[in-house]
Amino acid sequence: MNTLLTVGSVAFDQIETPWGNSDIILGGAGTYISLAASNFNIKSNLVSVVGGDFTENYLDVLRNHNVDITGIEKKKDEKTFFWHGRYHKNMNERDSIATELNSLGSFEPVVPTSYQNADILMLGNLTPVVQRKVIEQLNNRPNLIVMDTMNFWMNTMLDELHRTISMVDVLTVNDEEARQLSGEFFLPVAAKKIIKMGPRIVIIKKGEHGALIFNKDDVFFAPALPLSKVADPTGAGDSFAGGFVGYLAQTNDYSFENMKNAVIVGSAVASLSVQEFGTKKLQDLPKEELNARIDIFRKLTAFNLPKNIF
Amino acid sequence: MNTLLTVGSVAFDQIETPWGNSDIILGGAGTYISLAASNFNIKSNLVSVVGGDFTENYLDVLRNHNVDITGIEKKKDEKTFFWHGRYHKNMNERDSIATELNSLGSFEPVVPTSYQNADILMLGNLTPVVQRKVIEQLNNRPNLIVMDTMNFWMNTMLDELHRTISMVDVLTVNDEEARQLSGEFFLPVAAKKIIKMGPRIVIIKKGEHGALIFNKDDVFFAPALPLSKVADPTGAGDSFAGGFVGYLAQTNDYSFENMKNAVIVGSAVASLSVQEFGTKKLQDLPKEELNARIDIFRKLTAFNLPKNIF
Repeated sequence: MNTLLTVGSVAFDQIETPWGNSDIILGGAGTYISLAASNFNIKSNLVSVVGGDFTENYLDVLRNHNVDITGIEKKKDEKTFFWHGRYHKNMNERDSIATELNSLGSFEPVVPTSYQNADILMLGNLTPVVQRKVIEQLNNRPNLIVMDTMNFWMNTMLDELHRTISMVDVLTVNDEEARQLSGEFFLPVAAKKIIKMGPRIVIIKKGEHGALIFNKDDVFFAPALPLSKVADPTGAGDSFAGGFVGYLAQTNDYSFENMKNAVIVGSAVASLSVQEFGTKKLQDLPKEELNARIDIFRKLTAFNLPKNIF
Repeated sequence: MNTLLTVGSVAFDQIETPWGNSDIILGGAGTYISLAASNFNIKSNLVSVVGGDFTENYLDVLRNHNVDITGIEKKKDEKTFFWHGRYHKNMNERDSIATELNSLGSFEPVVPTSYQNADILMLGNLTPVVQRKVIEQLNNRPNLIVMDTMNFWMNTMLDELHRTISMVDVLTVNDEEARQLSGEFFLPVAAKKIIKMGPRIVIIKKGEHGALIFNKDDVFFAPALPLSKVADPTGAGDSFAGGFVGYLAQTNDYSFENMKNAVIVGSAVASLSVQEFGTKKLQDLPKEELNARIDIFRKLTAFNLPKNIF
């Protein structure tokens, strides 16, 4: 069984959407990634930090999904990272009402000895310095290092960001971030420029418009499923990432062809995740529902056009 | 050989983009649709209106692409419809610098006797009253009536728009227009509501994000090709429509399964059209290039994920 090592935030979220509000609920990139990846036949290890307010029942959610939490540090005298967000009517834009870093602000990741020899390292969105510290603690380089990041690090620590990007195999960003990072408007040109920064693969996430995966020569497009209802877009990108790395770890095949499959799997998991607030859907995902959702994706873009119609 | 009857504007355009400007060039929905459809083995008839300034060399462009122009009225003492547009940096938004209706303002479409018995009627974006007048002049209902429209008619003559929509088989709108027309945010819900207005098929065009085609029960997603350069997005939707109806007329198969093929064909034609200013690319499209582009679309979304991975 292959091992996925994830580093990412574990948090409390409070979510407002035009259609409803949540209580204070479990959130964080590390949480979404680990729960999404827990659907696969893999070993899943998580490095993160929480505060004294992160009670056992929350840790049990992770434990119950076979996530090894040896690497979650608990700072008893501090509070857990808290984010309060409000989505606009179009669900693509959101305002941060509150971002309280708390214990995450001084996070010094420590990779437990039992976490060495991971097959895949998934770096959830954190400061590029923290991400790099995790890479540097590994005795053997994993088969695949996947890194998520965001515009905030491009604005505030671009040099550090470049340094970490140069060490990874796969970078995931959204379309605006790809444009900002590369200085190029057209996405294939942006992807090529980012690939020159180090990663051999760039995944450009376009939310409700799907995702593109590029290598040096090729591109594949994974659609997003047009949904009749979205309860909460929070964690969609992390659920996608968890499905992506989970499937790759299960199959142990890091070819571009298999990454096409993995982005479909990630898209399917994300499309399920957003149908409930927070991690609710990820916490209870029957295998039949996952397989059925992937079949819907299969049908969504399949066509049977004869060759040489002109 | 099946017959496509198109009604749509024939115009002069002046285009500004962040990467270059055009002279005053041939444009108009009817022009783009007819030129795109001219790649197929069909008979193509066009109903439109131009002014005295629309010289023979422009009409020759249409004639040379086997478009029957019997139905183009020439108002010698008026000028041709003129549009001057400026695209923003993101190429999805544009400002109209000038919109001079000229001869189009008093357009009373006349379907020539030789145009009767069309297999497909394509109603380019025009007032819904003009669109309906064309339907009402046909002695026999075509096998398929496809209608394009826009938010302007939703804002200014919604009742007339509804009346025309109720008479067609396929409606094409963009995502914001689908939301406005239906009053629904989520596109599958919007499409279902529009289908209740009459059409059995709704195509939602999302520009660089592709297109969705819905019937009552089903949905198919056609990606847009991520391009490394776009010279001019003008006419992309009309090139798409021309490819869509052209392929349907050539195959004479109006099933939803074949419409999936047709939206891929339309997307491929549109992706070529935008690579040059105006109709330049549509005027010179070798069959090999068209077939090759469709092969790229085939590869863009094809994956090979085993069944029941969970």
